[in-house]
Amino acid sequence: MTVAPQRVSAAPSVRLRDRVAAVPGADATAAAAARQRLGGLAVPLGAAGGLGALAVRLAGATGTCPPAPPRNGLLVVAAGDHGVHAHDVTPWPQQLSAILAGALAAGEGAAAVLAAGVSVTVRVLDVGLATSPAEARGLVRSRVRGGTRDLVVEDAMTLDEVAAAVDAGARLVEAAVADGADGILLGDVGLANTTPSATLVAACTDHAAEAVTGRGSGIDDAMLARKREVVATALARHREQHGTDADAWTILASLGGFEHAAIVGATLAAAAARVPVVLDGVVSGAAALVAARACPAVVGHLVAGHRSTEPAASLVLDELGLIPLLDLGLRIGEGTGAVLAWPLLAQAATFLGRTTTLASLGVGSDDDL
Amino acid sequence: MTVAPQRVSAAPSVRLRDRVAAVPGADATAAAAARQRLGGLAVPLGAAGGLGALAVRLAGATGTCPPAPPRNGLLVVAAGDHGVHAHDVTPWPQQLSAILAGALAAGEGAAAVLAAGVSVTVRVLDVGLATSPAEARGLVRSRVRGGTRDLVVEDAMTLDEVAAAVDAGARLVEAAVADGADGILLGDVGLANTTPSATLVAACTDHAAEAVTGRGSGIDDAMLARKREVVATALARHREQHGTDADAWTILASLGGFEHAAIVGATLAAAAARVPVVLDGVVSGAAALVAARACPAVVGHLVAGHRSTEPAASLVLDELGLIPLLDLGLRIGEGTGAVLAWPLLAQAATFLGRTTTLASLGVGSDDDL
Repeated sequence: MTVAPQRVSAAPSVRLRDRVAAVPGADATAAAAARQRLGGLAVPLGAAGGLGALAVRLAGATGTCPPAPPRNGLLVVAAGDHGVHAHDVTPWPQQLSAILAGALAAGEGAAAVLAAGVSVTVRVLDVGLATSPAEARGLVRSRVRGGTRDLVVEDAMTLDEVAAAVDAGARLVEAAVADGADGILLGDVGLANTTPSATLVAACTDHAAEAVTGRGSGIDDAMLARKREVVATALARHREQHGTDADAWTILASLGGFEHAAIVGATLAAAAARVPVVLDGVVSGAAALVAARACPAVVGHLVAGHRSTEPAASLVLDELGLIPLLDLGLRIGEGTGAVLAWPLLAQAATFLGRTTTLASLGVGSDDDL
Repeated sequence: MTVAPQRVSAAPSVRLRDRVAAVPGADATAAAAARQRLGGLAVPLGAAGGLGALAVRLAGATGTCPPAPPRNGLLVVAAGDHGVHAHDVTPWPQQLSAILAGALAAGEGAAAVLAAGVSVTVRVLDVGLATSPAEARGLVRSRVRGGTRDLVVEDAMTLDEVAAAVDAGARLVEAAVADGADGILLGDVGLANTTPSATLVAACTDHAAEAVTGRGSGIDDAMLARKREVVATALARHREQHGTDADAWTILASLGGFEHAAIVGATLAAAAARVPVVLDGVVSGAAALVAARACPAVVGHLVAGHRSTEPAASLVLDELGLIPLLDLGLRIGEGTGAVLAWPLLAQAATFLGRTTTLASLGVGSDDDL
């Protein structure tokens, strides 16, 4: 069954620059208080490693010390198709995007099954699929266009289309936050979408195609060589057309996908509400890099859930200074890595808020360790 | 407040060799069925990485495909003191062992706080503390002796003491399993216990003191040099006295602690009941290595929760062929790494059991990927 896409207003509800301006930086006072509190817990100094760092980050992101353990996560799975699919960069048919999106919205796809296991709500946001997923309770129809144009030969989206997709992601998050969501997890579905992701990362970090292009769902050597060529050609076209110092929105329109734009919007809206954002793999990572280029303040609100096997994903983490919570070698996408990492946020906050202190055990400070 | 230790029978309830004989190997049929099922899920082949591997391991360990998501975890925190503490290998006083054990048993220590966050029950097993923790609901008194002898100059425990501590750990797990526990997480408390852990690993893997000795709670260079010297001297004494091919029980008695022995017992009892075991850091890792030397079949029942920063911990993982689920740079001990990893077991089982298949989505096999 296919359903006509919901009509999207041509005028985004909030202008992009207003969304950027609404994002506060990390709260340095709350983060400092968290560091102080961490130092007094009944564990050796520095022994909490990444768990302690996460607790400090959550304090800064939420502006609260100790941060409340987040318990109402929303996984936003942004779904879109890609003109570049025609270049044979994946062995899977494009129709699979809508099938997988439908399975997720129905609670049967991998990320949805995992999300249910940790009480995370799933919303699949069709912001640019070529075909319509079957109706399902988790599906949100905000399609801007039925897939991007071919980034090899032209800009993938117009700036108006980007703004509409950003807006769709942001509005979904705003509604969820109003409804009590205290964490936004980011995922994606879209056949061929590691290709625009790699290209976005290359454009934002000034890397060559060789450094950013990976095997995506597991392509063979011949297809990988073709994918690299596609990325290189798209990058050359982009630099010829927009130069090497284009702004975030121009890069996104030129090389991204509708799911990237929706994720940028979701990220900005969550950060504006001081709700932490958990990244998944290379698609959400590429989108986060774009968001950070438009709005550096957003970085303090990001948590890296998982280190994707895609090389561009690690470049994103380095660029944003993020250390991922998990490194399980996943390349499922859909937000699976973010969902698996999700319970660690509540654990980090609980650890900081509830662990007994050296002082209350009658033990001296461990500053000398 | 201190309380006299519970008296422990000199005769263990089950002989060590019977405990070893009771452990079944991993169920190859269930593991093969899990691999088969994994290949049909609606994700690219191999894309589930460590999550898929964990699901297969749980199928083998429990003998069921798909494995039931474990929901009733028990964290066994084995607590003991060490004669080697007198060699100044840690800046902390020995009395802190009992204080930390008491805080954990009262639900206020780091691992207890984290365990409560994921509904894991905590039992602190005093199997060899020098001083008694305050009474608390989570405390189990099974003290064999008030700390080990100094492993530098003599065997740390007698074989009878080892058997009694193994038995204490095993009986605690057997009671918990009878009560519905479906996962055993292992932790430890005991000042200076990274020293016997490093020495055990060196003896079991034939490494030198330099390769196994780490900074424990975060000691400085001078103390690290002294700790290395202690490990080297203890190893030389052990090899002189017992040779380089001693059996597991002799190595454990010579170089281990009561908490290692209790963890060996807990591990064997859990494996015998086909209940998966989640390792934490270098102490439970060293104990697992001893358990595997006595009983190779136990390995198929082990899950590595976290990669400790201690070098001996990574040697254990390599030796047992385990890839840890987390690598957060923790060096708290207490079972914190096992508790943080715990939700991933249920997620792996859920993933394998509930994710939709390519066939049910009407998509062909992805064998060619």
